[in-house]
Amino acid sequence: MKDTTQLCDWLEVFDQALSKQDVSAVQSLFADDCYWRDLLAFTWNIKTMEGRPEIVAMLSETLAHTTPRGWHATGQAEIAGNNASSWIAFETATGRCKGRITLVDGKCHTLMTALEDLHGHEEPRGQTRSKGLTHRADRQRRTWSELRSEETRRIGYEDQPYVLIVGGGQGGIALSARLRQLGVPALIVEKNARAGDSWRNRYRSLVLHDPVWYDHLPYLEFPQNWPVFTPKDKLGDWLEAYAKIFELEIWQSTSCDKASFDDQTGTWTVEVTREGEPVTLHPKQLVFATGAYGPPREIDLPGVQDFAGTLIHSSAYQSGEAFAGKTCAVIGAASSAHDVCVDLWEAGANVTMLQRSPSVVVRSETLMELGFEIYSEDAVAQGITVDVADMLSASVPYALFPDQQRALYQEIRERDAAFYDRLGAAGFAFDFGEDDSGLMMKALRTASGYYIDVGASELIANGEIKVVSGADVVALTPDGLQLGDGQTVPADVVIACTGYQSMNEIVAGIVSPEVATAIGPCWGLGSGVKGDPGPWQGELRNMWKPTVAENLWFHGGNLALSRFYSRFLALQLKARMEGIETPVYGRPDPVQSGL
Amino acid sequence: MKDTTQLCDWLEVFDQALSKQDVSAVQSLFADDCYWRDLLAFTWNIKTMEGRPEIVAMLSETLAHTTPRGWHATGQAEIAGNNASSWIAFETATGRCKGRITLVDGKCHTLMTALEDLHGHEEPRGQTRSKGLTHRADRQRRTWSELRSEETRRIGYEDQPYVLIVGGGQGGIALSARLRQLGVPALIVEKNARAGDSWRNRYRSLVLHDPVWYDHLPYLEFPQNWPVFTPKDKLGDWLEAYAKIFELEIWQSTSCDKASFDDQTGTWTVEVTREGEPVTLHPKQLVFATGAYGPPREIDLPGVQDFAGTLIHSSAYQSGEAFAGKTCAVIGAASSAHDVCVDLWEAGANVTMLQRSPSVVVRSETLMELGFEIYSEDAVAQGITVDVADMLSASVPYALFPDQQRALYQEIRERDAAFYDRLGAAGFAFDFGEDDSGLMMKALRTASGYYIDVGASELIANGEIKVVSGADVVALTPDGLQLGDGQTVPADVVIACTGYQSMNEIVAGIVSPEVATAIGPCWGLGSGVKGDPGPWQGELRNMWKPTVAENLWFHGGNLALSRFYSRFLALQLKARMEGIETPVYGRPDPVQSGL
Repeated sequence: MKDTTQLCDWLEVFDQALSKQDVSAVQSLFADDCYWRDLLAFTWNIKTMEGRPEIVAMLSETLAHTTPRGWHATGQAEIAGNNASSWIAFETATGRCKGRITLVDGKCHTLMTALEDLHGHEEPRGQTRSKGLTHRADRQRRTWSELRSEETRRIGYEDQPYVLIVGGGQGGIALSARLRQLGVPALIVEKNARAGDSWRNRYRSLVLHDPVWYDHLPYLEFPQNWPVFTPKDKLGDWLEAYAKIFELEIWQSTSCDKASFDDQTGTWTVEVTREGEPVTLHPKQLVFATGAYGPPREIDLPGVQDFAGTLIHSSAYQSGEAFAGKTCAVIGAASSAHDVCVDLWEAGANVTMLQRSPSVVVRSETLMELGFEIYSEDAVAQGITVDVADMLSASVPYALFPDQQRALYQEIRERDAAFYDRLGAAGFAFDFGEDDSGLMMKALRTASGYYIDVGASELIANGEIKVVSGADVVALTPDGLQLGDGQTVPADVVIACTGYQSMNEIVAGIVSPEVATAIGPCWGLGSGVKGDPGPWQGELRNMWKPTVAENLWFHGGNLALSRFYSRFLALQLKARMEGIETPVYGRPDPVQSGL
Repeated sequence: MKDTTQLCDWLEVFDQALSKQDVSAVQSLFADDCYWRDLLAFTWNIKTMEGRPEIVAMLSETLAHTTPRGWHATGQAEIAGNNASSWIAFETATGRCKGRITLVDGKCHTLMTALEDLHGHEEPRGQTRSKGLTHRADRQRRTWSELRSEETRRIGYEDQPYVLIVGGGQGGIALSARLRQLGVPALIVEKNARAGDSWRNRYRSLVLHDPVWYDHLPYLEFPQNWPVFTPKDKLGDWLEAYAKIFELEIWQSTSCDKASFDDQTGTWTVEVTREGEPVTLHPKQLVFATGAYGPPREIDLPGVQDFAGTLIHSSAYQSGEAFAGKTCAVIGAASSAHDVCVDLWEAGANVTMLQRSPSVVVRSETLMELGFEIYSEDAVAQGITVDVADMLSASVPYALFPDQQRALYQEIRERDAAFYDRLGAAGFAFDFGEDDSGLMMKALRTASGYYIDVGASELIANGEIKVVSGADVVALTPDGLQLGDGQTVPADVVIACTGYQSMNEIVAGIVSPEVATAIGPCWGLGSGVKGDPGPWQGELRNMWKPTVAENLWFHGGNLALSRFYSRFLALQLKARMEGIETPVYGRPDPVQSGL
């Protein structure tokens, strides 16, 4: 209770200093080691200010137009040692905001502020949900189904979407659902024939590696009897049902071919091909939601032409059925490489994994228990809904992740020592990242190089799947692969699980290489490890926030990230549609050359 | 707190008396005016015991095998005057049970007991949900989609469903979802082409008259942004998505033609026609879920052959579009008659309602405010989830409904006096039922004769829809209708909103008239009012519980009743499939003749 009072006092002083625009008074409320993560509330950006000088610089530029007020704690402070944390709420000139704060010895260590709703444009839900069709006799009555049919018929032809979303996977679907609630006309173009096909079309044995509590989409949670790990086709069906339930406008079997932006009119001209017919669209905003990844990184080695067997990229791999009895080499040692190896082994193939560099591997059971604490049935029972868990996750600045994660991986390594010993003895090279921070950091930094073990590791440990680690594949031969050390690996089939290029390669193809280069890569924190060169960003590059290119956005990530960040991208788009001022603090500079 | 103690004391004494099978000690715990409503826990029936003698009789027959134990209050007692109420829980030999009790002056006035789960057959959900597909390499791996395809291909041919459900509206769908969670193989046969068509095929302007909070299906609630009143086609889409999400097996475009039961083998032989092909099915259990109603009650009057205009039953009415400028007579004055009148008026027809007897009419807004208190956003905010609200509703014995409802309708009549004055002045005959107990009692007793005003009453009050009340239609003439008082009503179009026959008429057609007669009518409480002859039943006749006919069941009702009672019907079917003893207390005797 004392600490709740302390927190309330802090917030009151903070509130007063902000309302007086007294930045130096604000500054004195923060600890030396301090972080302020802002999701739109002050910066109209997704940005973490690290240390007092960055906080001061941000406030000096944003405080006058943000006019934050009414800071208060919502609920009791949570105490841990010298730390006192609390959920908070406040308002700005444009909206209602929430956040979370942690004080250490009475000074702010971390603050997270997030825009929740725009004043006057709140999402209708609960008490404010629509009544639906009018209960009144009306000779001009248009039924729901007539209105829906007309909307679907007109969009893209008579009516232009305000937002065009390229890609109808979980990213496009979650964003589009958010936009619809906010009254922003949106259209998805998706190359596959059915909503959910981005999952259905993956390899036969794919089952989500993340648990159900982490995977909910906005507005409609998976039911309580949904399995913990969702099979890909079941997820596909869910996405399809979801798109129907939320009345999303999706053009399936549609490719996005070309897009150019007119600075004068602030409008895109986008050429798409819908079921073979060219259509030109004129949205104001263009969102690339083509997955966390760009195009497949195809294998490009001497001898590819001469290879007599089958060579495919993992993105095109469907099933091992045709490869029973064949000798198969799988290049790579991350998630898809592991899954493909298992699938081939299950089909009766003779499988060798060619591991180029060490991978982070964690047993699924261990990770569920230790790494998904706040996304679990226990968490739900304690009142930690998925929304609360998301805000908790978002309240930790990326700069503090590695320390947290190192502690987790220390525990994991001890608990599963026997498992790691067996993996190592089988010749599999594993590590926990350059700085021992483990799987999630790999995912954030490079989106590659990790595997949540759902069965492959046992086959590797017992020799059913052979491993060549440190494999430097230099060429293909007519009957296999040539490694740098002179070894040859015979293969009837080569599956390149070699990953994907950056999302902005898709922009290069559709908009222009110049724009793509100026935007620079997506994803990665600038941590300075291999595959994620600095400088340090403090946030994921170019994701869900303004980029160098006007009216061009990236949306992506797994189900959890798509769920959470779709809200903030939708708010940014809504504000722009409504002509609300959205001064962006810290917009990136154009990148002069690729990293 | 004192009252909580009193309740706990009562439960302890009750528990001891039951465990000693001391029925006379039990009896002394009940007030003179007492009711015990049991949903399967003691009776394997849905039955209300009224007064001490009925309670004693029930216990004398059921206590020995039920062996209830561990009675306790869950949560604090709720106090109102001399009354103390509480949620309770206990166990029996076969399952875990919940309930609700109200003491008056320390003695039990009402007790409701309900089976929740069968020991060893609990529904997997939350902590016990399935993990989904095994995370383990497996050369015999069958994917979810392969297993689903095979299940769908085999059922009805290689594999027989344990339960065959006739009708795929909300009733069949909700029941089938429950059965699937319990691992009971079920198949729905449905005459329409798509799941949800039972709603889509109704008249154009139909929007649910009940609010969203009352309409949830099991397991998956409508999202928070769902409109209060669902348009019919949107509900159709929801049901279709729901059936897919819950992996239900439905044969669409399938009629159920003939069914006979073999007492020796305990198996039905059911002839269906699936997309034109005859198929014979052999389920153990047959459920009629064809709606709360039986076949349409078609108009059968002298002169039908000579009528030169269009004559249709409301069930076949789609839209007034073709009737612009026509003179239309609508026979009936309940919900569909009102909706059809509005639809015709909206289309520009000249409309007269022929009211045969007084209707109960309530303004939607008033009913939402006063009659749906526990199914509302406010209720949700107070923690009254739909499951809690359902149990609350179920805890009131039907015998006590009329008094409760009379009080409500007294308030409604006062509040909307001006509305009723205008309706009356326009010649519309309204009442509040024979005993002034209003709309819900009409619904329970006769499933007819009421209208929640969503627009028609204003058109009646201002004369846009003409009304002839007390209209006794005796014949059709070539150009209209002949009334008993000699009046003639000209009509190009006659819509017979004359209601439906009892559900068991469907049994007469599919099984046999003899079986249908033995079962007697469905629905109705035996209240003794017109359309619901006695003797008093205390429960709805033949619904969701054992009937005279072995292995033949009725399931039906609006979305709310389908949601709640599907649980109890599913538990009865599951217990029988598992060979659990289900001694039915109070199974009805065969009806010798139709009522």
